Amino acid sequence: MLFGSDNQTGASLQVLEMVIAANKSHAHGYGDDEWSRKAIDALKEIFECDLEAYFVVTGTASNSLALSCLVNPWESVLCHSHAHIILDESTAPELFTGGARLVPISKGEGKITSDHLLEYFEKAGTNFPHNSRARAISITQASEAGLVYTPAEIKDICDVAKNSGLHIHMDGARFANAVASLEAAPAQLSWKSGVDVLSLGATKCGALCAEALLFFKKDLAENFIHHRKRTGHLVSKGRFLGAQFAGWLKDRHWLDLARNANTQAAALAEDILSFKDLHIAWPVQANELFVIMPSELSAFLQESGAEFYPWYKEALPPGAQLRHNEVLVRLVTSFATSDKHREDFCTLIRQYFTTH
Amino acid sequence: MLFGSDNQTGASLQVLEMVIAANKSHAHGYGDDEWSRKAIDALKEIFECDLEAYFVVTGTASNSLALSCLVNPWESVLCHSHAHIILDESTAPELFTGGARLVPISKGEGKITSDHLLEYFEKAGTNFPHNSRARAISITQASEAGLVYTPAEIKDICDVAKNSGLHIHMDGARFANAVASLEAAPAQLSWKSGVDVLSLGATKCGALCAEALLFFKKDLAENFIHHRKRTGHLVSKGRFLGAQFAGWLKDRHWLDLARNANTQAAALAEDILSFKDLHIAWPVQANELFVIMPSELSAFLQESGAEFYPWYKEALPPGAQLRHNEVLVRLVTSFATSDKHREDFCTLIRQYFTTH
Amino acid sequence: MLFGSDNQTGASLQVLEMVIAANKSHAHGYGDDEWSRKAIDALKEIFECDLEAYFVVTGTASNSLALSCLVNPWESVLCHSHAHIILDESTAPELFTGGARLVPISKGEGKITSDHLLEYFEKAGTNFPHNSRARAISITQASEAGLVYTPAEIKDICDVAKNSGLHIHMDGARFANAVASLEAAPAQLSWKSGVDVLSLGATKCGALCAEALLFFKKDLAENFIHHRKRTGHLVSKGRFLGAQFAGWLKDRHWLDLARNANTQAAALAEDILSFKDLHIAWPVQANELFVIMPSELSAFLQESGAEFYPWYKEALPPGAQLRHNEVLVRLVTSFATSDKHREDFCTLIRQYFTTH
Amino acid sequence: MLFGSDNQTGASLQVLEMVIAANKSHAHGYGDDEWSRKAIDALKEIFECDLEAYFVVTGTASNSLALSCLVNPWESVLCHSHAHIILDESTAPELFTGGARLVPISKGEGKITSDHLLEYFEKAGTNFPHNSRARAISITQASEAGLVYTPAEIKDICDVAKNSGLHIHMDGARFANAVASLEAAPAQLSWKSGVDVLSLGATKCGALCAEALLFFKKDLAENFIHHRKRTGHLVSKGRFLGAQFAGWLKDRHWLDLARNANTQAAALAEDILSFKDLHIAWPVQANELFVIMPSELSAFLQESGAEFYPWYKEALPPGAQLRHNEVLVRLVTSFATSDKHREDFCTLIRQYFTTH
Repeated sequence: MLFGSDNQTGASLQVLEMVIAANKSHAHGYGDDEWSRKAIDALKEIFECDLEAYFVVTGTASNSLALSCLVNPWESVLCHSHAHIILDESTAPELFTGGARLVPISKGEGKITSDHLLEYFEKAGTNFPHNSRARAISITQASEAGLVYTPAEIKDICDVAKNSGLHIHMDGARFANAVASLEAAPAQLSWKSGVDVLSLGATKCGALCAEALLFFKKDLAENFIHHRKRTGHLVSKGRFLGAQFAGWLKDRHWLDLARNANTQAAALAEDILSFKDLHIAWPVQANELFVIMPSELSAFLQESGAEFYPWYKEALPPGAQLRHNEVLVRLVTSFATSDKHREDFCTLIRQYFTTH
Repeated sequence: MLFGSDNQTGASLQVLEMVIAANKSHAHGYGDDEWSRKAIDALKEIFECDLEAYFVVTGTASNSLALSCLVNPWESVLCHSHAHIILDESTAPELFTGGARLVPISKGEGKITSDHLLEYFEKAGTNFPHNSRARAISITQASEAGLVYTPAEIKDICDVAKNSGLHIHMDGARFANAVASLEAAPAQLSWKSGVDVLSLGATKCGALCAEALLFFKKDLAENFIHHRKRTGHLVSKGRFLGAQFAGWLKDRHWLDLARNANTQAAALAEDILSFKDLHIAWPVQANELFVIMPSELSAFLQESGAEFYPWYKEALPPGAQLRHNEVLVRLVTSFATSDKHREDFCTLIRQYFTTH
Repeated sequence: MLFGSDNQTGASLQVLEMVIAANKSHAHGYGDDEWSRKAIDALKEIFECDLEAYFVVTGTASNSLALSCLVNPWESVLCHSHAHIILDESTAPELFTGGARLVPISKGEGKITSDHLLEYFEKAGTNFPHNSRARAISITQASEAGLVYTPAEIKDICDVAKNSGLHIHMDGARFANAVASLEAAPAQLSWKSGVDVLSLGATKCGALCAEALLFFKKDLAENFIHHRKRTGHLVSKGRFLGAQFAGWLKDRHWLDLARNANTQAAALAEDILSFKDLHIAWPVQANELFVIMPSELSAFLQESGAEFYPWYKEALPPGAQLRHNEVLVRLVTSFATSDKHREDFCTLIRQYFTTH
Repeated sequence: MLFGSDNQTGASLQVLEMVIAANKSHAHGYGDDEWSRKAIDALKEIFECDLEAYFVVTGTASNSLALSCLVNPWESVLCHSHAHIILDESTAPELFTGGARLVPISKGEGKITSDHLLEYFEKAGTNFPHNSRARAISITQASEAGLVYTPAEIKDICDVAKNSGLHIHMDGARFANAVASLEAAPAQLSWKSGVDVLSLGATKCGALCAEALLFFKKDLAENFIHHRKRTGHLVSKGRFLGAQFAGWLKDRHWLDLARNANTQAAALAEDILSFKDLHIAWPVQANELFVIMPSELSAFLQESGAEFYPWYKEALPPGAQLRHNEVLVRLVTSFATSDKHREDFCTLIRQYFTTH
């Protein structure tokens, strides 16, 4: 019943075994090794293109390093008002970019649309250098509300963004879940729809600690190695990051892992909706559920050993309100979530309702 | 007919004469001189308290230096969504603070209220260090919409802010206009109502280039001299900044200058409202007018030599809309604005309407 | 014959097994887990004191995060002129500290002494804020020249440093090797001799990627979690860092690993000195050898599969000179170096000399 | 007898009069005015070339803004070990450049030579991104020791620097004094000898507060306006900076001012050398004198009203030593220094020696 976060699971066995294998020999440091090369080759194949790929250990580093390659310190990055980069990564984007600004352009919807962009540019000042010029947009796949962007939606945003001179970053902490959910080609969900740089997360979906930055527009990576080094993110025994990705990507393992998380999330949603006092705030399209439940039930579940966190009320859909004595909580499933976890959780809910 | 900005005037004669006087002898550098001391004494008297005061040459430097003393690089500063610090000072606040964040908390109203603060804290995450913690608020007097905050309004904001652990900065680029408008004591409009640090601007109101930072809460100035030096804002012949302030403050000269600007603004507002197709978006309480006029008239006036700038549409009051063929423009009066400037301007308007 | 760097080995089995064990269950993220707690307890026991401990993945992050807690952006850090932080970590220290400065105070000697400090303070300006004030010193154990600082030497430096208001950081990338070499208590080589913060490296000595920051002076860690988060170094599945340290420290494993490296280094030094045209620039006290050899031999060895790197000529002892056709190279042994590696290497040297 | 610093004088009358003239009318803000244009035209004429010119109020801002245009945050700037940018400007260079590093390459000589550069590159690591790459050099004219670089010396440094991919900055806080001293063309002392960007100081030589940045290599100015704005150095009433330069440059006034300072310095040197216990550490080529005198005399002079400061002992020529009871002090003459100042000073010295 651990639905607190997908980072509370460990690594999948296939990932771990590749790490163990990589440990058996000597290798050059700093990513100049066969495991890293193997992982990069796999990424090129999966994304059906040439690309620059680099590995780091955290999502915050991956996102902020990407942004540091896209904007100057006097420029701005547009993003969803609940984006992880603006809410949950302290002021890392500011540090990595040398002081660029994040500008939230949505108003509570589950996804950014090109209209948000058009509205921004309609209003934004162009009296440079007084005004800060927007130079990039960051979108999150799956989104802040657990929704997935279709290729058409991505393309729509990217078209408007590129017309306005923006680079496009995708925070793909749950990109695997989106690919599994949409059954779309990774290329279609990224560069073919206009994404320039993808922060592809493996940690939440079965790695120990491994995130990849994929530069589809290779010249944007020009200064990447300097940014990575001076932020302390050049890992000396780089093979262990390469090995995690090599294991994760092999034989579509990453999608199997994501698919399990998604399937369990969908099933859990169905379970939950079978209780009349529980509601789900957003359609469940990946592995996150935003659930409205009685506060007392939430307390009972947590006391009984279920793990999950209360969520920001502003993450509710526009117009939605919590009733008195209700809370919004987030449940996250993972590659390791099993039917049993779900059933135990529902048993607890049932138990609560029989006594209340 | 120069209503483009109050920085298009020069300096008042009294200010300039004090500079000339200060030039007559040798003096120690870096503010260790009699003119700077005289200015600081005047500030203490006018604000009826002990304080730390420093002089710099631009409003951007004054605001950003103040913020650099109030927040850590991982913290946030709350402000009006149209605040000068967030719209018109590039990413200076980020640079000076080492990467802290500005968070706009209003939604188009002319002034911030304590409700904005309460709503912010209702929603803001407190999962540190993931979330960035708000540590300061910056309010602008006169406001972004040309309105003045009364002592009671300031106190209301400051009370809520202090309860939440915020320091309070006031961007007083047009503080003189607010004092003159409210006929309130400077102390009442600042520390007595809870303001910790005031960026007191003289440049827009009769100085060559002189801004003062007043730390009412003196311990917040602990590292000020280091921030000022490493941002290149420690002027070597500091006496010339001190002299400008000494001249500006002497015999309530600063309020006379501000009063003229305000009076002319009020008169200009009356003039403008006498034309049926012209509207004023916000009450005129200081020296700025936000005027809605036919686009053609605006073009005619500018071609005829009148100076003013189109303004951000988002600065309209909530709900207000421009009709087809209307524009929003900003007119600013200054200490040097005369009846003649106004009359010439109105003559042009009349001329336009007689032919259209 | 892989003497290129101790980061070219993998992890020791005991470390890896602890990672595998930690993978078997769910755990809270961000270091709130039993493995991290176990590691911290072990550190407290080994260092015989209470302390604050945090784990990160690279030595650069560990060093720079430590410095970010010790100095303000307008202050300076004194260090050896060949310190890793000043030569090999890009401008990470500047980034992490918000722009503080590194000041090299030695002149080519193998270790910093208190005389270097005294000479620095004799000359350094104290006209603040114009001059940057030194606020910390960083020393490296084992040193840049592969030497070890005795407790008395550390205490001597720290006494002078503290008298001048400096905090003391120790870059312990090879601290294990120093402890093993000196057979001294870890406490004696750190806080008992005056060190405030130790960057304790495990990566070079048997971990996958694990570095610990130990704050003996706990109040210096006040803002650490914010610095770690905004530099992207808060690892979500923190248990894997804790597990590495738990495995590494268990049953004095870390010292066994270091001892092997040291022993092999000493034996290799003896081997090398048996050849009349090879010289060793500095006494071999840990696991690095700085060897002067004929250029042709160096080329021959590298072509024959031996791995090592040419080294900065300025790392020679003061006065030492390379003869024509000589090069300075660095050889590093590790926990995985075996007699066989050494013997193969010497066989190659012999082979070279029989044909030249 | 005010020899403390050239920033203890005021402004020359010609400069002040131009400011007064500029005050008589309205003007656009931010440098878009006739006075600024006039000053830029004068600079183009005097430097015999097209160039980009910008005005700021302090030398620290001018130097650091120049460097911010020349290097990336992971690169380094080479400079004299006593350069103003490394000793006297806090960590402004680090802040403005986003964290680039200053590397002192001289060892106590009065000027940098191309040999310093060659020696640096002989030793410097090229293992990027680990090592920080040198990308600029900053030289000071007149130098840290009050010496002037001849065109041939500048060219020699610039040739080596450019071969190594460095941009060249000149800190010309006392460039006027150097031009007057060498009777060379400004172009010859700057771009014709290889200088890319010149920080031309007027403040020390007769302005109120006015420094110009001249980009001879215009594409280096690409991002200048953003750096200037976000450091708070875009002055709103820019005409007053333009006016100072217009007045200063008019009719070779700047060189007249500098010439007086130089002439008085030379005369003062002669005066001083007529006393047998006084020595001058470096040849007097501009307007600074580094004088070795008995401590008691120094104290007597200061008590008697003479102003000057003790100087860093490391500024002595290599090998030079102070005897017991001697001090090193710096005397600076200015455009306002008169024969009378000198004579009064010498009278005091004589008075001292008659009683000791």
